[in-house]
Amino acid sequence: MALNVKQEKRLLSSALFAGCDTQSYRPLVQTLSPISILKGQRIGSPPHHASALGFLLDGCLDLCNLNGVLFYTLEAGDFFEIEPMFSQIQTILPWHLRARTNTVVTFLDKNIMLSQFEEDPAFARNYIHIRADYTQNLTRQLDHFTAASPGVALALYLLGNHTQHILKLPDGLAGLARRLNISRATLYRALADLERRQLVSHHEKTVRILDHDGLFAFAYSQSQPQDSLPAE
Amino acid sequence: MALNVKQEKRLLSSALFAGCDTQSYRPLVQTLSPISILKGQRIGSPPHHASALGFLLDGCLDLCNLNGVLFYTLEAGDFFEIEPMFSQIQTILPWHLRARTNTVVTFLDKNIMLSQFEEDPAFARNYIHIRADYTQNLTRQLDHFTAASPGVALALYLLGNHTQHILKLPDGLAGLARRLNISRATLYRALADLERRQLVSHHEKTVRILDHDGLFAFAYSQSQPQDSLPAE
Repeated sequence: MALNVKQEKRLLSSALFAGCDTQSYRPLVQTLSPISILKGQRIGSPPHHASALGFLLDGCLDLCNLNGVLFYTLEAGDFFEIEPMFSQIQTILPWHLRARTNTVVTFLDKNIMLSQFEEDPAFARNYIHIRADYTQNLTRQLDHFTAASPGVALALYLLGNHTQHILKLPDGLAGLARRLNISRATLYRALADLERRQLVSHHEKTVRILDHDGLFAFAYSQSQPQDSLPAE
Repeated sequence: MALNVKQEKRLLSSALFAGCDTQSYRPLVQTLSPISILKGQRIGSPPHHASALGFLLDGCLDLCNLNGVLFYTLEAGDFFEIEPMFSQIQTILPWHLRARTNTVVTFLDKNIMLSQFEEDPAFARNYIHIRADYTQNLTRQLDHFTAASPGVALALYLLGNHTQHILKLPDGLAGLARRLNISRATLYRALADLERRQLVSHHEKTVRILDHDGLFAFAYSQSQPQDSLPAE
């Protein structure tokens, strides 16, 4: 089965084809197939997906590790790689993608990618931008997981994910705890501390940043700018 | 000052130019300057380095965050970006590079990179591979920092960094503790536990994997393959 008109349009209007002559890509896109993933199902790393760029046509996918830490939620229009296509460094413990809702994805094979890199510099550049954003997201995750305290991890998450100082938690505080890899009790304490400092306010699934500069100063000052060893 | 003959050769024989007509790159490479960094000095994110691909000509650089967690040690021949050149996602807390020894680096400006992407698909592909390896390294770091226990973090580090089942710790157990963001006491306990299980042995700065499959099975089984929430 081929992509339908709407799916084709969604892919061709994605970041991968920005500035490309999309008309010339239609024959290629017409060779792709949509793959449905039911809510709750996982995409693991079977060999046939290992060397491909995934594209989320519709729905929502959670990127998790084996022990359930939630790294990232992909939305329609996002790209992903289950195994990194262009790295020789092997994965040790696999991550997986789990459908948060009924989801439709498609895959662009590594060989397709390589031949388009040859033919179209704009396509290669777009791919570089997409992966750079993904890498930057991983960097932010590393900042959460190595933060000096749960309060700093929460502050960094809020600073990195708000829209006009407001952050709607897609899966509530329980989901945020999984994203930060801390217990809910620890998250509640950290949130209460930021509220007490009048840096944020919180109502149900919405957190509001009251003092953006103050929140940044809190995160920065708690992360001592020196090579200190972790406390024994 | 321009790169000397040896430095020029080191850059042109790097992964960035694999399969490229290196002769045609000589004029470009002759525009680059070597920058010396004394042992202990840092490279931060000043604006003039922000949009460039760094190359380590000689020496050793540690990639750290503000609170001293050691993510990665770069060696001669490695590339790095202080700020990701092609991402629009802003860094919140800066990381820095600190020279472990006297070090010499050079920078390829973003504009140089972009124009070479246009002209040489092999150059673009090489850059994609270099960044994919970097991204995969970050993924491994995320696995360490979100491991189910310090023992699993240690097992994953050993599985990911040994050469023929032997791992020489460049900065001893104290350095490894900083890399895993755990205290030295916790690291000693985790190492003693893996030794008791006869999975590894340890003598001074050398760790030997005695049972590779067993070590993997330990890491895998302790990382429960289910979406469990962290313990409260």
